This record gives sequence, C-alpha cells and structure tokens, in this order.
Amino acid sequence: MTSTRPHVVIIGSGFAGLAAARGLGKARADVTIIDRTNHHLFQPLLYQVATAELAPGDIAQPIRHILRRHRNVRVLLGEATGIDPQTRRVWMGESFLHYDYLIIATGSRHSYFGNDAWARFAPGLKTIDDARRIRARVLAAFEQAEFCHDTAERTRLLRFVVIGGGPTGVEIAGALAELARHTLREEFRIINPAMAKIVLVEAGERILAQFPHALTAYAEQALARLGVHVLTRTRVTDINSEGVMLDGALLPAATVIWGAGVMATPVGQWLGVETDRLGRVTVDRDFSVPGLDGVYVLGDAALATLPDGTVLPGLAQVADQEGEWLGRALARRINGEPPSAPFHYRDKGNLATIGRNAAVADFRRFTLRGFIAWLVWGIVHVYLLNGFDNRMIVTFRWLWAYATRRRGARLVSLSQPEVAVVPECRAPLREE
Amino acid sequence: MTSTRPHVVIIGSGFAGLAAARGLGKARADVTIIDRTNHHLFQPLLYQVATAELAPGDIAQPIRHILRRHRNVRVLLGEATGIDPQTRRVWMGESFLHYDYLIIATGSRHSYFGNDAWARFAPGLKTIDDARRIRARVLAAFEQAEFCHDTAERTRLLRFVVIGGGPTGVEIAGALAELARHTLREEFRIINPAMAKIVLVEAGERILAQFPHALTAYAEQALARLGVHVLTRTRVTDINSEGVMLDGALLPAATVIWGAGVMATPVGQWLGVETDRLGRVTVDRDFSVPGLDGVYVLGDAALATLPDGTVLPGLAQVADQEGEWLGRALARRINGEPPSAPFHYRDKGNLATIGRNAAVADFRRFTLRGFIAWLVWGIVHVYLLNGFDNRMIVTFRWLWAYATRRRGARLVSLSQPEVAVVPECRAPLREE
Repeated sequence: MTSTRPHVVIIGSGFAGLAAARGLGKARADVTIIDRTNHHLFQPLLYQVATAELAPGDIAQPIRHILRRHRNVRVLLGEATGIDPQTRRVWMGESFLHYDYLIIATGSRHSYFGNDAWARFAPGLKTIDDARRIRARVLAAFEQAEFCHDTAERTRLLRFVVIGGGPTGVEIAGALAELARHTLREEFRIINPAMAKIVLVEAGERILAQFPHALTAYAEQALARLGVHVLTRTRVTDINSEGVMLDGALLPAATVIWGAGVMATPVGQWLGVETDRLGRVTVDRDFSVPGLDGVYVLGDAALATLPDGTVLPGLAQVADQEGEWLGRALARRINGEPPSAPFHYRDKGNLATIGRNAAVADFRRFTLRGFIAWLVWGIVHVYLLNGFDNRMIVTFRWLWAYATRRRGARLVSLSQPEVAVVPECRAPLREE
Repeated sequence: MTSTRPHVVIIGSGFAGLAAARGLGKARADVTIIDRTNHHLFQPLLYQVATAELAPGDIAQPIRHILRRHRNVRVLLGEATGIDPQTRRVWMGESFLHYDYLIIATGSRHSYFGNDAWARFAPGLKTIDDARRIRARVLAAFEQAEFCHDTAERTRLLRFVVIGGGPTGVEIAGALAELARHTLREEFRIINPAMAKIVLVEAGERILAQFPHALTAYAEQALARLGVHVLTRTRVTDINSEGVMLDGALLPAATVIWGAGVMATPVGQWLGVETDRLGRVTVDRDFSVPGLDGVYVLGDAALATLPDGTVLPGLAQVADQEGEWLGRALARRINGEPPSAPFHYRDKGNLATIGRNAAVADFRRFTLRGFIAWLVWGIVHVYLLNGFDNRMIVTFRWLWAYATRRRGARLVSLSQPEVAVVPECRAPLREE
C-alpha cells in the first residue's frame, strides 16, 4: 500500500478481530486482517462438527466474503510469527508489515497445564482441524470395536472420556451419548453402539460452575438420562495411550477429549510484557497495552478489567463487543471525530445445551431449562451464524436430525492418521 | 461369523459394490463389504467439491447407514491388500477373511501413463481427499496471488491448467471459470480474480469425444464464453513445479489438475491374471473371472464385453447396473432359485455440464444442450444422490448459488500442506 493513510493491522479473524475490522470499515485507514485460515469460525457450534452433527463448512465463512463491502480492508492468509513494537512491525516468517495501529486478537488454545504430552492422546477443540480429528477418532472407535473380538479392548474402544465440565465438555458428552444411543442404532451387527460409555470428568465441585446451582442439578439429571457418567471432584493425573488416570487409577479409554483448560496464544512473549497464569496480557480500559504505543489486545488473549473490578471472561460475546467497540473507537480517532463513550459490557446471558430438548440458559434476571431453553439456544445460535446459506443449512440439518435422529456429516477414511486400525484387535478376523 | 451360510465378500463400496450388496440383501448368505472409507461417494459430483460448490459430506453417505436394513450385510472399514484365490482368502494386512464368493469392485485411480512423478504437481480427482486437496490448491493460488508483487509469478499463480477434455475436465474447467469470474468478484483488493486464465488441454481431436460432434461444438462455445481457453490436439510432455510442458513448450501454471486417464486398481496382480492396457481384468458374461472359482470383477476394474462386442465403458451407470445384476444373480443361486436372465445393459445416456445454464445431454435418440440440458442434469443428479438430507442440501446450495453466484464450501487453512506460501512472492510485503 502506498497511501499515506494510517495502517491498522489486525491479527486474528475470530469474533474480536472480525468485529474490529467491521468497526474500522468506514475509517480513513488501510486495514489488513491476518489469519492462518481463510475463514471466520463460529466456535460455539464447533462441538457439533466434532460429533458429526454439522459439516465444517456450515459454521465457517470466508473472511474475504464477510468483509467484501469494506473496500479499505484487505485480508491476508498468513501466520504472524512475531511483533517488534519499537519499529512497529508484524513479522510473518521472513516478511513483515508495518503498522500504525496493531490489534491482536489471536484467541486461545487448549492448555494441558504443563502436560503437553497429553495433547497426542486427548485432542482439544478450537479449530476445524481439531474438530475433524476428534470426529475421525470417535467414528473410528465404533468401526474398530465392531471388528474387535477382544472383550477388554472392545470395552476400551467404546469408552469416551470428556475432560472438563464447562459448557464445551457438557455439550460434547451429550452429543456423543446421542450419537451412540440413537444415530448409530441399527447400523452395527456385532457391537451395540448404545453400550458405549461416555464419562464426563470435572475437577471442581460441579459441572457448569458458571451457571446457578439449580441449572447444574438439571444438567446432571439430563446427562444421566442420556447415560453420561459424570465424575466431579475428580482429578486427571495422567493421559496415555491406554486411557486416563483419574486420581491415580486407570480408566481405559480409546477416545479422550480435552475440554478443560485454555491458554492465550503467545502474545505476551511477542510483546515482551508480563501475562497472567492463563497467558493473558493486561490491557487498559481502551484495550491498549500499557507502555506500547498503538498496540491493543482483545478477546481471550486480553486480561481486561471492568470499572467494578470484574475480569471479562473468555466468551464469544465479550470478544465481539470488545472488537466492535475498539474498531469504532479507532475509526473515530483516525477520522478526527470526538472520542467514543467508554467500553460498556452488556452481558447477554449464558447458554449450554445438553441434548435433544435439554439445555440451560442463564439470563441473570431469570433462568430457563429443558425444551424452552433448548429452543432458545437453537434460535440464538442460528441467528448469530454468519451467512444466510449457513443459517438455512444448519436449520435444515437440525430439523432433519430432530425428526430422524440422523447426522449428516459422518465421513471417515483410512487416509486419516487418527483412524489407525488396531491390529491385535483385528487378528481374530482370521476365520475359515 | 460362525454360520454355515456362504460368505460373500465385496471389496469396494462404489456404485458397483454398493449395488451388489443391496442385491444380496435378501440372500441366505452372510455378506461383508470392505472399503477404505466409511462412505459411499457420489463421484459424478466430486468436481463440485474440488471447486467449492458443494461440501464433501453433501455427496457422501455412510455405507452402514445406506445398508442398515440389510441385516445380513456387515460393513468393514479396512483395506484389502491381497487375494489368495486358492485358499479363498482376502488379505487385509496381517488378517484375512475367508470367502465363498468374492466380488471385486475397487474401481480406478488416475493414471499418468507411466509418468508417476507428475502426480505431485497435477493431482487427479477420485476421492474426497483428492477433492479437498485440489480445492486447497485452487483457493490458495488466489490468496497467494493477492500478495504477490512479482508480475510473472502472479500470472503463473492465476493460471489453472486442466488436462483431459472428457466430462470431468470440461466440468472442472467450467466451474473454475465461474469461481474466478463471479464467486470471487469483490473479494480481492489487489488482483482481479477474473483475470485468471483457465486452460483445458486435450490430446485428441476434440473435447467430449464420446458425445456427438454438434455437442462438442456447443461445449467449446460455452467454454469460450466463460473465458476457458481450449487447446485440442495438444500433448502434455512434462509437468513440473513451474507448470506444464505442452508439445515441448512451457506454460507456467501454479495449479494443474489431472483429468486425463484412469487405470484400474491392481486387481490383475492380486488375482495373477492378465489385464488390458488400462489394468482391467477380462470377465465372462456373468462377470466371473475365467479359471477362478467364485471370483467376480465389476465396474471400472472389469473388462466386460456385451454380446454385440462392445466393451462396457467406465461409467457410474454401468457399475451400478452390473452390481445390481450380479447381487441378484448370486442371491438367486445361493437361495436355490432359478437363474437370472443374462445381464442386459440399459444405456441411460451421457450428460456433462459446462456451467450456469449450459450442459450437454446425449440420450442417443435425441440430444439436448443449453439451459434445458443443464436443468435435466441437475434434476437427474439430485435424484441419483443417496439420502433425502443430501438431496435437500444440494438442491438448496444450487438454488442459492444460482441466485447469488456464491459458493458455500470455501475452506482453506495454512495447516494444509497444499497451501504453502510462496516466500519469494511475499518479500515485497516489506513495506514501511
């Protein structure tokens, strides 16, 4: 770009980055948004891709397409590898971009609390690739169990352990139970998929700890009805190729899914500033990083505190509101308009779904549970999706699944590394 | 299986294998169908996955789900690695299955006529993985061109060469032209995607050689209107990282797609029998392999000749009819019923689509072209798809694309090996 207009660089096209780019759409500035993928991902529905309810493309839209009308915004498929705040450069491998304003919205990855070796055995769920990987493992476990004549190994193949009792863990566990008990019914000849055991492990006192106690109790009942075994106050001490060690005892399981902890991406290292235990960078009320001129951090990567002292949680709605506010505030500043009113967070409530006709919703002034919460959950999530076509397709898939219990996105292939066949298990196939 | 009923093993769940399994659904036999993937793929629409018009799951259904009502059929996710006709064993790595009847329907892969080194630079299109790979290359080429300041390299990135003027090549070329000229419009800031050059290369006299001359002429006009450059009587002499050598002259191109030749999978080697130049095994009128008791070959892997001397072509409708006939014939034999009437091939005609409102159809007694052929093509293909949900979703996507020119399946990520960034091209990003 050869213009003399200020250059705003945004790293990350999640909720925060995308909202910031939109907010800057009318600024007299050149905006570049960088991401490792070409799409904005609607993470709240990612667990449905991992459990074959939705297809990857249903919840992703190309960033270029979303921002096509903002002629001052360009989109760059690339990976930021470092930042030099002194010379105002964003490095991408050997090349770099100069910025006047830098917005970092790189989100978070799952964190294994220092046990990175667990990652191999217990994948987390943050990207489309993660979801495809988990889906492959889940579907392959049933395929392998069908042809496994070793009873202990078959039991291990049909045990699925979900670690972390937050909304993601609850949603995955519920969806796995419905997959096993309903979707796969009739399709196997030797195993009965309904015999699969789904175990949800939570270290704390209760699942859905951010919801009122009554909703936790409801969710536990709903999970029990689905056959999910919920273990609270249970610590994971190791994860290996055999299964999960819970408080020191082995629970054999072929499929382990990590939904327990997240950690901000290495923004603190890039900027040379301190972070909290979760890797978050402390920001001012306007999301700027103290001491670094023109650098802002948003969303899961930021430790932002409200005037009343509460820390903003790592939620899509927080990231979205922060991005929108900062984009507009910067646009006003660049355009020479009067400054924006200070950031004000509007809590729109918390939702989590457990399964068919079962969800919980906490709107602070009132709560919902059961069918009505589930209906609200569905409508809200379709409404929040990007793109009319995705809304239509997700609605159709949900109605179809509701009517038939079928799922439309069950693809798996031996070409995927996750689908390794268990050879000891196959040996009994030798039949004459 | 411990039953004394005969065991029919089917290798491959394409059109032939699936139809055979269905035909055997009421036989007093145990049937095992083996495939490397868990899904039956509707290959005629695979080019639309490669060009981001449809999502992978839209044209694939789990085999287990399709065959769920046939209680005597079991489905095995596995890869056949060899056959021993003497001991009647199908080997899968270290384990094996015993068969009484064996149906081989393993189809074909693309063939580079002895130039296997070309595969790296010019992927073919036979599986979902192939389609995802081509889609990643195509979308990444536009992404890279946007940030490439080297004119020659940008031109190379925006040139797409499709090799082979059969229906697949014509369909890919047309779809690429529409992607560049319509779908990606508005979305780029530096390049104009409509400047992309699509080149369709055919060694023979004309494209769509299996269609009447008038339809070839129409297709050439329709492709020209879309901006596709058709080169007939042009031989590919080499393919490398720079592009394609055509009759010895280099045409620089970053994306080359192979639609020229196919070769049957190594069934001949497995069985120790002779094959023709395309790797096909000669079969009798009942698709049995002469000299091998109880072994049948179907579809693209078979060289089957009709009583009038014509060789059955490698088409979905041929494979489907063969599979249905053989499945039923074997069921009658196993059930002790009178034998079936001999196989009779019913030619349902040939269809190929070029783009919006443009297709050709040859129903032998009459031909169609243009909008009406395109409409017939769409209706026939939706009708032939497996699964009501896939039919609805494909119909919706096509109507949506027709109304808006948008495509819903444009996912690409730097985590895919096909999306390597061209570093020399990025260097000019160094801007201050």
